[in-house]
Amino acid sequence: MIKISVVGATGYAGAELVRILSKHPEAEIVHLVSKSYAGQKMSDIYESFMNICDIKLEGMDVNKIASDSDVVFTALPHGASKEIIPAIAEKGVKIIDFSADYRYKDPEIYKQWYGTEHGSPQLLGKSVYGLCELYRNEIAGAAIIGNPGCYTTCSILALAPLVENKLIDFKSIVIDAKSGVTGAGRSEALDYSFCECTENMKAYKIAKHRHTSEIEQELSALAGEEIVLSFTPHLIPLKRGVLATCYAELRDKSYSAQQLIDLYKSYYKDDYFIRIYDCGKLPETHHVAGSNFVDMGLAVDERTGRVIVVSCIDNIVKGAAGQAVQNMNIMFGLPESMGIDNPAFYL
Amino acid sequence: MIKISVVGATGYAGAELVRILSKHPEAEIVHLVSKSYAGQKMSDIYESFMNICDIKLEGMDVNKIASDSDVVFTALPHGASKEIIPAIAEKGVKIIDFSADYRYKDPEIYKQWYGTEHGSPQLLGKSVYGLCELYRNEIAGAAIIGNPGCYTTCSILALAPLVENKLIDFKSIVIDAKSGVTGAGRSEALDYSFCECTENMKAYKIAKHRHTSEIEQELSALAGEEIVLSFTPHLIPLKRGVLATCYAELRDKSYSAQQLIDLYKSYYKDDYFIRIYDCGKLPETHHVAGSNFVDMGLAVDERTGRVIVVSCIDNIVKGAAGQAVQNMNIMFGLPESMGIDNPAFYL
Amino acid sequence: MIKISVVGATGYAGAELVRILSKHPEAEIVHLVSKSYAGQKMSDIYESFMNICDIKLEGMDVNKIASDSDVVFTALPHGASKEIIPAIAEKGVKIIDFSADYRYKDPEIYKQWYGTEHGSPQLLGKSVYGLCELYRNEIAGAAIIGNPGCYTTCSILALAPLVENKLIDFKSIVIDAKSGVTGAGRSEALDYSFCECTENMKAYKIAKHRHTSEIEQELSALAGEEIVLSFTPHLIPLKRGVLATCYAELRDKSYSAQQLIDLYKSYYKDDYFIRIYDCGKLPETHHVAGSNFVDMGLAVDERTGRVIVVSCIDNIVKGAAGQAVQNMNIMFGLPESMGIDNPAFYL
Amino acid sequence: MIKISVVGATGYAGAELVRILSKHPEAEIVHLVSKSYAGQKMSDIYESFMNICDIKLEGMDVNKIASDSDVVFTALPHGASKEIIPAIAEKGVKIIDFSADYRYKDPEIYKQWYGTEHGSPQLLGKSVYGLCELYRNEIAGAAIIGNPGCYTTCSILALAPLVENKLIDFKSIVIDAKSGVTGAGRSEALDYSFCECTENMKAYKIAKHRHTSEIEQELSALAGEEIVLSFTPHLIPLKRGVLATCYAELRDKSYSAQQLIDLYKSYYKDDYFIRIYDCGKLPETHHVAGSNFVDMGLAVDERTGRVIVVSCIDNIVKGAAGQAVQNMNIMFGLPESMGIDNPAFYL
Repeated sequence: MIKISVVGATGYAGAELVRILSKHPEAEIVHLVSKSYAGQKMSDIYESFMNICDIKLEGMDVNKIASDSDVVFTALPHGASKEIIPAIAEKGVKIIDFSADYRYKDPEIYKQWYGTEHGSPQLLGKSVYGLCELYRNEIAGAAIIGNPGCYTTCSILALAPLVENKLIDFKSIVIDAKSGVTGAGRSEALDYSFCECTENMKAYKIAKHRHTSEIEQELSALAGEEIVLSFTPHLIPLKRGVLATCYAELRDKSYSAQQLIDLYKSYYKDDYFIRIYDCGKLPETHHVAGSNFVDMGLAVDERTGRVIVVSCIDNIVKGAAGQAVQNMNIMFGLPESMGIDNPAFYL
Repeated sequence: MIKISVVGATGYAGAELVRILSKHPEAEIVHLVSKSYAGQKMSDIYESFMNICDIKLEGMDVNKIASDSDVVFTALPHGASKEIIPAIAEKGVKIIDFSADYRYKDPEIYKQWYGTEHGSPQLLGKSVYGLCELYRNEIAGAAIIGNPGCYTTCSILALAPLVENKLIDFKSIVIDAKSGVTGAGRSEALDYSFCECTENMKAYKIAKHRHTSEIEQELSALAGEEIVLSFTPHLIPLKRGVLATCYAELRDKSYSAQQLIDLYKSYYKDDYFIRIYDCGKLPETHHVAGSNFVDMGLAVDERTGRVIVVSCIDNIVKGAAGQAVQNMNIMFGLPESMGIDNPAFYL
Repeated sequence: MIKISVVGATGYAGAELVRILSKHPEAEIVHLVSKSYAGQKMSDIYESFMNICDIKLEGMDVNKIASDSDVVFTALPHGASKEIIPAIAEKGVKIIDFSADYRYKDPEIYKQWYGTEHGSPQLLGKSVYGLCELYRNEIAGAAIIGNPGCYTTCSILALAPLVENKLIDFKSIVIDAKSGVTGAGRSEALDYSFCECTENMKAYKIAKHRHTSEIEQELSALAGEEIVLSFTPHLIPLKRGVLATCYAELRDKSYSAQQLIDLYKSYYKDDYFIRIYDCGKLPETHHVAGSNFVDMGLAVDERTGRVIVVSCIDNIVKGAAGQAVQNMNIMFGLPESMGIDNPAFYL
Repeated sequence: MIKISVVGATGYAGAELVRILSKHPEAEIVHLVSKSYAGQKMSDIYESFMNICDIKLEGMDVNKIASDSDVVFTALPHGASKEIIPAIAEKGVKIIDFSADYRYKDPEIYKQWYGTEHGSPQLLGKSVYGLCELYRNEIAGAAIIGNPGCYTTCSILALAPLVENKLIDFKSIVIDAKSGVTGAGRSEALDYSFCECTENMKAYKIAKHRHTSEIEQELSALAGEEIVLSFTPHLIPLKRGVLATCYAELRDKSYSAQQLIDLYKSYYKDDYFIRIYDCGKLPETHHVAGSNFVDMGLAVDERTGRVIVVSCIDNIVKGAAGQAVQNMNIMFGLPESMGIDNPAFYL
């Protein structure tokens, strides 16, 4: 059994992680840390865990957590774990971090988009970007995982085969992404209240959303040259789900949708969690809700010479807690899909 | 492994059953029957099953199904399986039926509420009402299970401790029940369209909903005398969830909420899926959504002398597919919670 | 033109009031008061008012407001206007208050349910309970209106004909009420966040919701004797709408639904905003959403001898802002439905 | 008073039209035609109209309708009015048609996208594309109006200033549009059922949605050259609202958002229903829900040289019934905003 601690257990990503771990055959939760709710039980905050996870929430004690755990998941906002993580890492305990802090190779990029100096740039060399389908080998031996964000997971995987094979004009990429409200976390902000969200939709942070830089870093690495692209996030009145509609101009206009679909199926042939739709079919978010799958379909617009790729994930599973467990499975030599191989809820 | 066939696999209850069985450690699906979609794969109809359940849907072949299966789940409307079930039962294969057909002890009651003669009254003696918490022993040896409806499961369990202990005036029972839209099944009717349901709620079939007769049958059996009660169903704009608010006058007005909560905890002390809330707390449907749990809380209104019990289930899990699997587990000597012990989605 | 000020203009009830007044043929808004947003325009807070109501929000200035206004609407929580209202009333300006402060005849009842002394008991004699259909004559000459709450409007009107005609056992009344989320106002509390509300429902404050006392006060007055009843509120995932399902035992079991419907039609024959459904039909909240109508249907459960009345309103129109305007119309001798006679949105 | 008949009164667009007309100061409804519900009252089908529009629905009688009406609104699918409209037009009665039939200048384009010959190509010369902000003068004298679709209204108005001023590369246009479910009309199809739509989103008809041809026709006319673009519709779980996110490359990368916003404000300075947001602000669909407004905001992505315009409408008001009334107002010399100048519901 892997001994696990979760820091930030009562946020939505943390709670989803506990939901998954509570039925993972090799997981043993040893500590749940919550600054706000220390002293209460997990099931006091989320009654859905009653009789399933009644563990008492604790305050932060780095030494205890490090000495009791094989791996620590930190599910806090960027910057919030900047003292905890180096301290834990020093003791040789594996870390899977949900924030942006260990996703970047270059601390300058981090500073530019997050507006603050990176707290532990010396650790960036020890950390791996935890997009399992692209970095499986590096993840296996990593000390720290920068677990990717929801928009980025959905967008990078949608474009990777086209970018790596240089099939598109790199200047033409537009990603129009739509997210459910859990993407904002367990928030009291008025913007995420029921009455403001339901029967409403909006774009936000156009041309300046931080995930843009993550997507660009990863696609540039695949392309072998710098890619700059347009990314627009939207808030949609549902709980779970990110859908990214990705547009790019084909370099060779003669490519058919079928050819590209074949390419995608081949590119992802060893990836259990990637499902490529047959020609004429398109994914929907309820096909993946509650699961760790990434569903993709694509079409070629022959009139304009563009390829349009649509990809869907559950933002708090494959976009957060599920991918974190997938990373853990890889790091500990377990079957990659262990504990996260359930089908979507659909309903 | 238990060999399982599902008749009516593409309805919502059928699909939910396949979702559960696809991860049940002792279940092997051998046939999925669908009149409408025979020849297509399950994952053509529900893309969420892609790579998980790609079994081809078949037309009905009683002999083949009976000879290949240890148990057949029939998830069709009442009356629709009236030839299939006797034919399968005759061959000694266990049946778990989702319709109302085998829920009644008296075919006259069935006729009165369903407006049609019962198709196989001779089998009622061999069938057991599949409310696991009340009929565990009878279910273990039954040939046919009449799997209870969602409203009834939620209502009967909410009132059973009060009724069996004769703590309430039996003439005073009012059940005000609220259901999500999956309760109507996979329906094309305009009434269940998104635009008619969202931002809307309504009561329907007041004083004449068929589930009333099921609730009365079971509570009367517990009381040892005939109980007639008021039951009002409501349609609420959510997918999964039934919440029943049950009112009754206490015979002894001196009972406190704490005393009654203690009674409930004792009454259900051996039932994994029943969770009784502490005094001052109340269940919510997202505490149980996607799970097989029945969550209950209660309050005493000292001013009026009434006890109010609130109970919540997921209508297509504990109210249909999950309870069906619970019944199967009991019938085949497996741990009762096998394959259905996950916590709720919450989000 | 009636000169109008609104105190608390940026809450949901206040904003809905501005929405209605902006198209009311006899209304002229002179001041909009908001403590939180003074200095900004109404359309900065609610962009829906752009080019329609760009009035600048102001801090509270009792003298200016009183001297410029014919009527002041105070849309603040109970107690919050306790200094403002006496000061304005003293200057002879009419007041329509959305809080509970002027709804009670007896300050002891107020203290008992709100846990605080009433701030200006001397004004209770000058205030009228603004349930237009019951107190039209008194409202016409009132100085202060205690504008009723949403649950109470829906519940009292549903039961008034039965109570006033003494057709039911007064001890048997149960009101099971369901509310949309705007009922909680413009709130940042986690309980009202999208992710906590959508796909969820719950009962709350069983046997202790403050509106119980308002309903009892009014029904007791109609009955000529003290009525104590059970009232249970529920939170439902929609924005606009309250639906109350009211149960009571008929004194004379021979009454038919048709007879009672005829009685209701007669009782409310002069009330434009009350619509009684024909036998066999039931109201739904989208029949009234966005309108000032109160739709009611009823059934008799012959098996139990109960009458069940279902009534629906839009909680922020007839349950708040619309009824407030209806009160204003009556107070100023305008046609009662002026500016609020639109049909529901339905969609 | 303008005498009005509505053909297809019980579809969602028809019902919304009746909702608006019921309070329009110059409108008198003389006939409501419904094939499915002839003989019933409008308020039998939509109870929200009880006591407001209890007009009896009739079957089609071209002569009676033409002789009694000043204008006929036809709210039927494309092709369905192909005999009615020429017959009515012949009698000199004005027609405002909600289908695609009279939106095209070239019947070949119609045939290409709708897969059928146009039924009355000879009338295309007498018909005007009813996008009021662009064709106000032509509409005033038109015999037949081809009332634009929802996606097209939202998209064309979003791009018109950029296209007419040739500020963007015409080959670079991508429109990513999101629609609420009323866009599908009053449909019984499973795809639009509550359980399939809620908690789900999807793209559909990529590179082949018919509205593409309408958008291209109009933008090409403004550009003075042929424009071909990418248009992707998405289905979003809300009722009212279309949001279009439009991307294009600026020809001159030095343009700032502020300069373009100034240009938009100038371009639309005489259009009551167009609201341009200040720099840094973006529209949301609940800012326009229930209203005839078109709200737009824009940003410039300096890193990629793209302008991104976001526009929002209520698809059944400005995208159907409201714009139809706006057209009527123009045709009959009334103030353009009469009867449709209400603010959005917001809640």
